[in-house]
Formats: sequence, structure tokens, C-alpha cells
Amino acid sequence: MRSTLLSRRDLDFLLYEWLDVEGLTARKRFADHSRETFDGVLDLCEQVATKYFAPHNKLNDANEPTFDGDRVTIIPEVATALDAFAKADLLGMTFDNRFGGAQLPFTVGTACFAWFQAANVGTSGYPFLTLGNANLLVAHGSEELIDTYVRPMLDGRFFGTMCLSETQAGSSLADIVTRAEPRDDGTYRVFGNKMWISGGDHELTENIVHLVLAKIPGGPAGTKGISLFVVPRFLVNSDGSIGERNDVVLAGLNHKMGFRGTTNTVLNFGEGRYTPGGAAGAVGYLVGEPHRGLAYMFHMMNEARLGVGLCATSLGYTGYLKSLEYARSREQGRSPLSKDPSAAQVPIIGHADVKRMLLAQKSYVEGALALNLYCSRLVDLQHTAESEDERSGATALLDILTPVAKSWPSQWCLEANSLAIQVHGGYGYTREYDVEQHYRDNRLNPIHEGTHGIQGMDLLGRKAVQNGGASLLAFGGALSGTLAAATERGGELAELGVALQATSQRLLAVTAEMFAGGDIEAAMANSSIYLEAFGHVVVAWIWLEQLVAADGKTGDFYDGKRQAGRYFYRYELPKTAPQLDLLASLDRTTLDMSDAWF
Amino acid sequence: MRSTLLSRRDLDFLLYEWLDVEGLTARKRFADHSRETFDGVLDLCEQVATKYFAPHNKLNDANEPTFDGDRVTIIPEVATALDAFAKADLLGMTFDNRFGGAQLPFTVGTACFAWFQAANVGTSGYPFLTLGNANLLVAHGSEELIDTYVRPMLDGRFFGTMCLSETQAGSSLADIVTRAEPRDDGTYRVFGNKMWISGGDHELTENIVHLVLAKIPGGPAGTKGISLFVVPRFLVNSDGSIGERNDVVLAGLNHKMGFRGTTNTVLNFGEGRYTPGGAAGAVGYLVGEPHRGLAYMFHMMNEARLGVGLCATSLGYTGYLKSLEYARSREQGRSPLSKDPSAAQVPIIGHADVKRMLLAQKSYVEGALALNLYCSRLVDLQHTAESEDERSGATALLDILTPVAKSWPSQWCLEANSLAIQVHGGYGYTREYDVEQHYRDNRLNPIHEGTHGIQGMDLLGRKAVQNGGASLLAFGGALSGTLAAATERGGELAELGVALQATSQRLLAVTAEMFAGGDIEAAMANSSIYLEAFGHVVVAWIWLEQLVAADGKTGDFYDGKRQAGRYFYRYELPKTAPQLDLLASLDRTTLDMSDAWF
Repeated sequence: MRSTLLSRRDLDFLLYEWLDVEGLTARKRFADHSRETFDGVLDLCEQVATKYFAPHNKLNDANEPTFDGDRVTIIPEVATALDAFAKADLLGMTFDNRFGGAQLPFTVGTACFAWFQAANVGTSGYPFLTLGNANLLVAHGSEELIDTYVRPMLDGRFFGTMCLSETQAGSSLADIVTRAEPRDDGTYRVFGNKMWISGGDHELTENIVHLVLAKIPGGPAGTKGISLFVVPRFLVNSDGSIGERNDVVLAGLNHKMGFRGTTNTVLNFGEGRYTPGGAAGAVGYLVGEPHRGLAYMFHMMNEARLGVGLCATSLGYTGYLKSLEYARSREQGRSPLSKDPSAAQVPIIGHADVKRMLLAQKSYVEGALALNLYCSRLVDLQHTAESEDERSGATALLDILTPVAKSWPSQWCLEANSLAIQVHGGYGYTREYDVEQHYRDNRLNPIHEGTHGIQGMDLLGRKAVQNGGASLLAFGGALSGTLAAATERGGELAELGVALQATSQRLLAVTAEMFAGGDIEAAMANSSIYLEAFGHVVVAWIWLEQLVAADGKTGDFYDGKRQAGRYFYRYELPKTAPQLDLLASLDRTTLDMSDAWF
Repeated sequence: MRSTLLSRRDLDFLLYEWLDVEGLTARKRFADHSRETFDGVLDLCEQVATKYFAPHNKLNDANEPTFDGDRVTIIPEVATALDAFAKADLLGMTFDNRFGGAQLPFTVGTACFAWFQAANVGTSGYPFLTLGNANLLVAHGSEELIDTYVRPMLDGRFFGTMCLSETQAGSSLADIVTRAEPRDDGTYRVFGNKMWISGGDHELTENIVHLVLAKIPGGPAGTKGISLFVVPRFLVNSDGSIGERNDVVLAGLNHKMGFRGTTNTVLNFGEGRYTPGGAAGAVGYLVGEPHRGLAYMFHMMNEARLGVGLCATSLGYTGYLKSLEYARSREQGRSPLSKDPSAAQVPIIGHADVKRMLLAQKSYVEGALALNLYCSRLVDLQHTAESEDERSGATALLDILTPVAKSWPSQWCLEANSLAIQVHGGYGYTREYDVEQHYRDNRLNPIHEGTHGIQGMDLLGRKAVQNGGASLLAFGGALSGTLAAATERGGELAELGVALQATSQRLLAVTAEMFAGGDIEAAMANSSIYLEAFGHVVVAWIWLEQLVAADGKTGDFYDGKRQAGRYFYRYELPKTAPQLDLLASLDRTTLDMSDAWF
């Protein structure tokens, strides 16, 4: 039976037929790997996700974690699943051999992790955060911090979090007020409250490693005065054993529309409940240098943004497959050409409008997954670049694709989930089926790790203009390569290439026009629309990439790819025309709107 | 303090400054009314909705009705609210004086009911269904049925339902198998199972009046063999007192993503639990003539579709007002031109992207409400037409606007709710705020009373082509009137008129082109896209209508109307261009998609 979590056939196509992940084994870092080891871990992930994660997805939603003022209670299936995940050595998949990791390409790790997000987004939240945390510490932490915290995280003994937001500082991190006072022994004492901390409290692991943004008194104002600290729930003794309770206290759980399986918390640091070492404040350990915390955290956030995009994609993908299965089995109505009311009803997949809803989903989720994996491959190229040119090229392109890889799936795979509900009709609106939960879960993704609006500002105000437009040029270069390949193949591919070329040239021209007048406020006013138009061009390009890879191949799978690609070019790409017109006009409607007029 | 349910200022503008509802009092049916009586009932509805409905909206959602196998339990606040509603004589608002009703214009009744849907969509579901049921019986039932069932419904002693769907027959009503066997005494015995019956069981009232579609054995196949029956939960004695239990049995409750306050049920008719009069089957009373049931039910469904659109609008409207209030009080970030991190944070309503999300909501919800009220006024014109021309003109226009008035708010006011969440950031995703519930509640509206796809087929396959295009012509005529008024006013209104004229002419031309080739299958394949393009043109027209009414008036309210109208013309109407191109191409992408390729 085909999985309704993800399509392994599609993953194989994307990894091997398109992105040539096998080719990565020529690089030193991945020299021990082969298609066999990649396939082995993909098989394993599908199995663990199917056996341990998927079965309690609804249970997790219906029985969210509770807090009695003392302890957090989570249904036991979560611990069992995470135990199976850790025992299968999946936490260390992409980490260096020297930390006990498997040193797999990030591209393969991405494909692997998607199985867990599709199966159970709530439970997968814990390893998601832990891996981001561990990655950051490996990149910026001391050997001591790595030994003390990263190794137990990769073993599944500790889990990690990222503590950025505060009640008054969500999108505006410059305004955090949590402070970290230096002590003579080189440690810090942390005081403050953090909001929206996923995985912030639980008893799934021996310890929780919080990565906390805080200000050292006397530092610069705004984001330039933010430092990063490890603040563990329990102090760790020098022999690695668990020591005293640190002064990190759960103030409460947030109750969400979806994503209920992951605890989301308000944490108080240094409120005085515990006095580790006999003194006030939560003990924290500086990561890297003072005042560079936000830069380090962006390392984690950029990865987290790719991961959020992947999460949105995975939820969209499983919703698509479930609505496809439903559409094949549910009989309702007849062809519009049939006049015989006594004829048998047909499976709804026979109706054009249902096929439209399925094709739309297919074009969104397969486009998004391809984009996510493409970005992951850029991460691999960054990490294993054989020249500075290769590294800077990969970085420039990844920089500009990251806000799209986060926001586009968050918007369109949520729309896919809505279509999955619609295919189910009334049944899709009930909790008896899975798709309503996917829709609720997925609604978080346009909010966390930088809202849709923040991604738009990042794309237009930073990525599109940084380094003299280097990232935009890198994107133009990648596009040109694809267009050249499409032109060379001729036929339908060349035709699609013409459409993409016209739209992408207009996009680049409009980008220049927007800044030409020097009116930054007007240029930035519609950055969300820019993000959406840019995103559709990116995904059209990713679809053309896939179609080039499928060119000349026969069979249902490839015919399906081609039809979904056509759908995207016929139904989706043209949506950018009015968006680009609006952007080119430097429209001031929103700027001119007065508060009093609402 | 301004209400966050609806804007009374906007209602007053729409009713009195635009639709001239006061002018309706010149008609005989409404001769006893005046602006004072209209204002009085609007005030009353705002008060009852605010005092009795809004306070338990979240409670209703968090504590949905339960069924222990014997009885349904509903939180007591629901009965208290409905009691207040009935005691205020609101059930009879629009009904004839001869039934004890207040004979108010349907336009005023619509504005009144919106307060309850905005305040508490779950609790308002009971009177919603009851009024639709009573309206149908008044139109098609015998005096005896009216006396026995309608009068107690208008008193609030009985509530009503509509029982159409069965497990195997949702969108395809032709396939219902519930049967009604005639008995010698003129009654029928009903056997079958009904699905998705809102308000299908509860103990809020003495009795429940089910309107049930069923087939009389030996009748024609398909929709032409469907008859309509009153099947009460309890038989009613000849003196009006409650008699024996009828054989209508609750098989179970459906558990939904939202709209949780309204019970949604599976009902078994004639399963044998009860034997009224000592024999098997649920006792039913034929409404009107045999085999004409679906036509009668469409009378109710057309009203219900307007009501579903209004429900979507009301949820969108309250979400808009709540996100507006939040945006004015929540401080976060600074102007993009500010470089000083120590400057105070600004209310987020100062950010262009937040203003965009608020303006989008305003343009959707005010456009949708105006459309809903416009349609209600057409109902009034139908009911009180002073000539056959007036009646047929109103009917033709209402026919083609009904699928839009149902589907457009269901799509765009749901999008408004999503934007309301986005304005709230992470807070909007929590159950601490109202907007996540509105979003969940509103997701039902594109599904029930005919899905989005069904509305598209109704619009393109029936309404646009019926009676030699009479409805389409009526719409063209209404548009022309508005365009002439806009042209006469000149300036910006004339400019907007030019844009609307170009798009609407293209829409009408494309409609003709689609059918010109005689390929019905291709023409119908994209009926959902047609519905969406048509809808945007309709709402652009409705916006121009409002702007004409606001022309020459000064003050914040009118400036806000103008800016929201501009927003719709600049950001929304242009979206129709690629849709119309696609429709004109008679694209076959969905038709050509093979099941095997998915």
C-alpha cells in the first residue's frame, strides 16, 4: 500500500534523478556514503515515522500537554516515539562523525525529517528544535559546551529550545529586556521572561538546553547588544551527571489552534524559585562572544526557516495524499454529460473540479518539496565547497531563497490543506478525518520563525539588495541555466521557458524600478506582495527544473509531473502579472490609509 | 466603546444612505414601519447579541454538545440566549403579521441577524435553521402545517431543521434513498438515515420540526422523484399539545473543526425504536405535492445560501474589528525610516504591511456585507413588487447573485479571518484570542449549503445561461446603471468605472466565448475559477455602488470607505485578468489529467 505520508517515488526522483545527491558522495565529507546508505536511512525514517509517529498524531492533538502548576503531562506515546527516533540514531544523521553523527548530506537529512513532520508535527517538534540548537552550538559554541550539551542532545538524553521572543518583543527582537549579568567565574546570571518557547518544559528528557537571547548590562542598544547563552534546566556536573535545578520556571502553557502536541511555554528565568549555587538568577553560559548573539541565532533561524518551510510542505503533502485516496474511493455524482440518474455514481476523482483541487495540491506540495530539497543541497554545497567561488555562490543563492523556502510552503501548502478539506466535503471538516488537523497545524507556519511580513521585508529590504545585488544576480544566474537547458530540449519545455523568462525578467526589472526613485517607504510598503510574486517565480523555476529532469522519460509518474508542471504554468504563474503591475506602480494605498479612517 | 461584533455606522450607511431601506416603507407590506422601528430592532439585536450571545461564544466552542447515547447535553448559556432571542420576538421579525410576525423588510432582518452570527455562530445556528424551515412552510405548506408547526417555531417553542444529505448523497441529492410510504390516513411513514443534520437533536425546545427529503416508492428516478415531509420529533396533538415520540433517533453527533456550538447529527428515521400510533416508521406529513420536494427545498436553500454568505461575512467582520482593535493597542517595532533603537515602539497599525492586512479585511467584509444586504433588498423587491417587470427583474438578478453571495464571503471573509490571525501574530494562533475560532468556524461556509464547486456549476451551468441569459442581462443592466452614475460624478469615480467596465465587458465576452464552441465539458471544467472571477467583478461593482453613495460626503467614515474601495480596485480586481485569460482559453489541463498520473 502506498504511504499517505509522503511519496517515496517523488523523493527518489528529486534526490537521485534531479538533484544528483549520489554525486555528493564524491565529496570528502560524504565519501563513506552511497545510494545504499541513503536509501537505508530513508527506509528507516519511513518505517519509524509510520510505526511510532503517525499513530498518535490525532491523540496528540486531542490530548494536548497539561500543566498542573508543578509538572507538565504529555501522553506516553510521545516519549515512546522519541525514544524510537533516538535509538535509531536519527538525531545525529547530519552531524559530524566526531560527534557520533552519521555525516549524511543535509539534503538527505531533510528528506528524512519530512517523514516525521508529515506523520506527527507535534511530536517532531522536539527533535526539530533540538537539532537546530545542536547545530548552532556546533558552529559557535566552545568544545566544552559541545561536550556537555550537544553530545547528550544527539543521544536523545537532552532536548533543546530556542528562547528569543518576549511578551513585548516578538517580531522586534531589538526590544528584548532579559538581562545576563556576568559573574567572576565567567558564568552569567540570567533574569527575564520568554514567550512562545516551544518544547520549553516537559519531562521527556533528563535535561532541557535553552538557548537564550539576553542583554549584558552596559552593552549597545538594540540588536547590537544581544548576546546568546546556554541556560540548562538542570546544571550539569563536571562528570556529565545531572546537578542542581537551575532557575528556569514554567509560568504557563500557551493553548493553540493546532500544533498542540508540542508544548509551547512562557518561561521565567531567575524569578528566584531555585537558587543554583546558592545565589539568585538562572545560570547561563555565554556562547561565542558578547553582543554577537543575534548573528549566531540567525544561523539557527535560517536553518529553522528552511525547517518551517519543510514542515508546511510535509503537512501539505500528507493532506494531498489523503485527499487523493479519498477522491479515489468516494463515489458521488456523475459526469456533467451523463443524463441518466439511475447510472452508478462515479468516484469524485472523475470530476474536473476535484481534479483541479488535486492538481493544485500536487503542484504546490511537489513544488515546495523540490524547493526545500534544492535549498538543502545548497547547504551541502556551502559546507563542502571545493572553492571560495562555489561557497559564495551557494551562499548568495541560499540567502535569497531562504525567505521564499519558509514563506511559500507556509502559504500554499496551507492552501493545499484547505483544498484537501474541500475534496473531503463535510467529512473533511470533521475530526474523524486527518485533514482538518493538518490545516490547523499548518496555520502556525506563516507566523513563527518570522511572520510572512517579516520574510517579505527580509527578501526585499535585505536579500534582494545586499552585496550590490549579489543574491539577486545569483538567482538570475540559476534561472538562466535552467532556461538554457529548457531551450535546448525544445518543444513544450522551451515554451514554458519563454513564459518563465518573460515573468522573471519583469520581476527583476520591477525590483530595480521599485528602488530607482529612492522612496524606500513606498518600495517597502508592498514587500509581502513582492514576496508572493517572487515566490511564484521561484517555484515556476523549480518546476521547470523538475520537468527538465523528467524530460524524455515515460510512465505515469513522469506524465503526472508534466501535468502538475503545466498546471503551475497555466493556473499559477500568471497570478504574478497583476502583482508585478502593482509593485511597479509603487502604490501608496496602504501608506495613505489613516488610522482614523478604519 | 465601539462594538467589535459589527459596525453600526457601516450598517446605517448601507441601509439608509445606500439602499434606501426607509423607502421600502412606501410599500404596503412595510407601511407600519419607519426608520424608528428599524433602528429600534437594530438596537435591540445589538444588545441581545452582545449581552446573551457573545459572552459564551468561546465556552460553546470549548464545550461542544455531548451525547451519552440517550440525551444531548448543551451548556446552559445556549438555552438562556435563545430564550432571550425568542422573548424579544426576534424569530418573527420578517414574518407576516398574520403569523404574529413583525413584517419587517428582509433587508433589516438580515442586518439584525448578522449581529447574532458575529456574536456566536454556534448558538445562532438554531434560529437560523428554524427561520429557514418556517419560511419554507409558510410558502409551501398547508394552513394546518403552518398552524401546527410554524406558529410554535416563531414563538421559540419548536426549532426546525433541514434534512437533505445522506451518507451516500451529499452534493448528489438525486441519490437519496430515504423512502416515505403513504398510509391510508394521508400521512406517510419515513424510513432512512440522514447525515449532517444541524440542530438535529437537543432539548432546547419542546419539539424539533424536521423537513425531510424522501422518495415515495414508485416515483420517478433522480431528483424528480423527491418529495418533502414534515417529520416532527414528537407528534403534535390536535389541541397543539405534545404527543407521542416519533421514530426519529439520534445515531450520533459529528465532531467538527469549528461551528462546534451547533449540534450536527446523524439521524435515523423509522429504525423502530419508537412506534408512533403503534406501527413502524417515522410519521411524516407531505408538504405540497408529491415529487416537488426538491423545488420547495431550493426555496429554503436559496435563502440558506444567502444566510451562509451572511454568516461568513459576520465572522469576517468581527475578526476584522478585533484585529483592528489589537493593531491599535499592540506596540511592536518602528518605522522602516527610524534608525534609533531606543525610540519607543509604535502601535503596529503604523506599519504598512499591517495596514495592508486591515485594509484587505475591510475591503472584503464591507464588500461582502454590502452584497448580502443588496441581495436581501432584492428579496424584498420580489416580495413586494408592484409590477411583474419589477418582480422578474429582481428575481433574475437575485438568481445570478445568489451563488456569489454564498461563495464570495465564504472564500474572502475566511481569508479575512486568516489575516486577522496574522495581525495578532502568535497571539492570534492561541485560543486566548477570538480570531482562531472565527477562522475555524468560517471554514465550514465554503462546504455546506452547496460546496464552492457546486456554486460554480450553479452559476456557470445554470444561472449564467438560463432563460436565454436573462439573469446575466439583468446583471449587465445593474452594472450599467452604476457605471452611468459613476461617470456622471466624474473624477475618481469615473476612473474606477472605466476599470470596472473593461473587466465586466471582458467577463461577459468570455462567458459567451466559453459556450461558443459547444464543448460543454471544457466550458464547465473551470467553473470554480469562473465563480471566483465573477465574484470579484460583482464585489467591485458593489464597491462602486457604495462609493457613489458616499460621494461628496466628508469625514473619516467616508474617507475610509473610499480608501477601502480604492484598495479593492488596485489590489483585488486586477486578479481577475489571468483568471479570465484562463477561462477564455478553455483550458483542458484538469480534464486531461489521468487518475493514474496522480
